[in-house]
Amino acid sequence: MSHQLDDEALDILFRKARTHNEWLDKPVGDELLQQIYDLMKWGPTSANSSPGRILFLRTREAKERLRPALAPNNVDKTMKAPVTAILAYDLKFYEHLPRLFSNNPAARGWFSNSPQLAETTAFRNGTLQGGYFILAARALGLDCGPMSGFDNAKVDAEFFAGSSVKSNFLCNLGYGDASKLFPRNPRLGFDEACKLL
Amino acid sequence: MSHQLDDEALDILFRKARTHNEWLDKPVGDELLQQIYDLMKWGPTSANSSPGRILFLRTREAKERLRPALAPNNVDKTMKAPVTAILAYDLKFYEHLPRLFSNNPAARGWFSNSPQLAETTAFRNGTLQGGYFILAARALGLDCGPMSGFDNAKVDAEFFAGSSVKSNFLCNLGYGDASKLFPRNPRLGFDEACKLL
Repeated sequence: MSHQLDDEALDILFRKARTHNEWLDKPVGDELLQQIYDLMKWGPTSANSSPGRILFLRTREAKERLRPALAPNNVDKTMKAPVTAILAYDLKFYEHLPRLFSNNPAARGWFSNSPQLAETTAFRNGTLQGGYFILAARALGLDCGPMSGFDNAKVDAEFFAGSSVKSNFLCNLGYGDASKLFPRNPRLGFDEACKLL
Repeated sequence: MSHQLDDEALDILFRKARTHNEWLDKPVGDELLQQIYDLMKWGPTSANSSPGRILFLRTREAKERLRPALAPNNVDKTMKAPVTAILAYDLKFYEHLPRLFSNNPAARGWFSNSPQLAETTAFRNGTLQGGYFILAARALGLDCGPMSGFDNAKVDAEFFAGSSVKSNFLCNLGYGDASKLFPRNPRLGFDEACKLL
C-alpha cells in the first residue's frame, strides 16, 4: 500500500472535521448506517476479536429510552440528532473467535479463562472500533457528535439488561449546522505528546 | 460537511488495508511520523482531553529496550519494522485542560478529584486516539501492525517509570510486504454487531 489520501480527504477525516451540536433537517437513512459498519468492521482488533456492538437509535421512542441517562447538557442535541449511536462492547466477544480467528483454536480460551483480560480487551478494542466508526461516518459525509456525558449504568440497564454487552460512549450522527460551531479548541503540539527514540 | 471520500480512499483506510507482519526495506522518516500526529490530533476526545501519548522507537537501541516485553511471536516482526510506536496515555491529562478546554474552567476538577474517572477517560480516549493514529498512518500511505501481545508493566517500567503515563498498545509502522499476508479473517455481519431501534 503506497497511495496517500488527497488533501480534501484528510480535511474531511481530520483537519476540518468538527464535533457538531446542532443538526440540519436532513435525515440519515438506514442504508448509510449499514455502510458505516461495512467500513469500520475492517479496522484491526486484537486477534480479530471485534468486540464492538452498536445500537442505532433512530426513532422518537428509542431516543426517549435514552433521555433519562443523558447529562443535562447533552439532552437537546441528542434528542434532535437524526440518529444517536450507542457504541458498546460485548464482554463475551470470545464466543465468536472460533469463527473470527479460526487460525488459532486456543484463542477463545485466552479470554474465556480470564475475565480481566476479556474486559480489558473488550474495552480497548471496542473503543478502537469506536474510533474507526467516527472516521468511517466522516468518510461517508456525515458529521459526528461523540459524548461520554451520560450514565453508563442506566444505559446498560435500559438497553443491555441480561446480556454481556456494556455501553462505551454515544455518538450523534447527522449533517451538522456549521454556523453553530464553537471556536475550535487547540491541541497538544507534537513535542508535548510524542517522543522520538 | 457533505463530501464523501472516493472508493480508493475507502479501500486504503478500511476495505483493502491489512495488518502487516513483514516489511519492505523502505525507511519511514521522522517527518512522516510528525504528519501522522498532525492529523490524528484533530480527532475528537472527551472535553478535548487528548490523553494519548506516543513514543516512536526508530533505533536499534530503542527497540532492544522493548524486546524483553514482547510476546515471543511479536519479536521478529517488531525488531524488523522500520518504526514501532508505543501508544500510551497520560493519567494526568487533566493538567492540560485549562489550555485545551478553556471554555470550562471546572473541567480539570472533574478528573483531578476522581482518579477512577480520570483512568477510564484516559484509557477510553487514549484508545480512540490510537484508532485515529492507525487510520492517519494509512491515510499517509503507511501500513500498520498493531499489537496487544506484550507485557504492559514491563514497558511502563522501562519507558515511563516515575511518570503518570501508561502503555496501551504497540503499532509497527512501515511499508508492508503484501506477498507475505495471511488470508484475511472474516468479520461479524451487520445483524450480528448492530441493531436498528
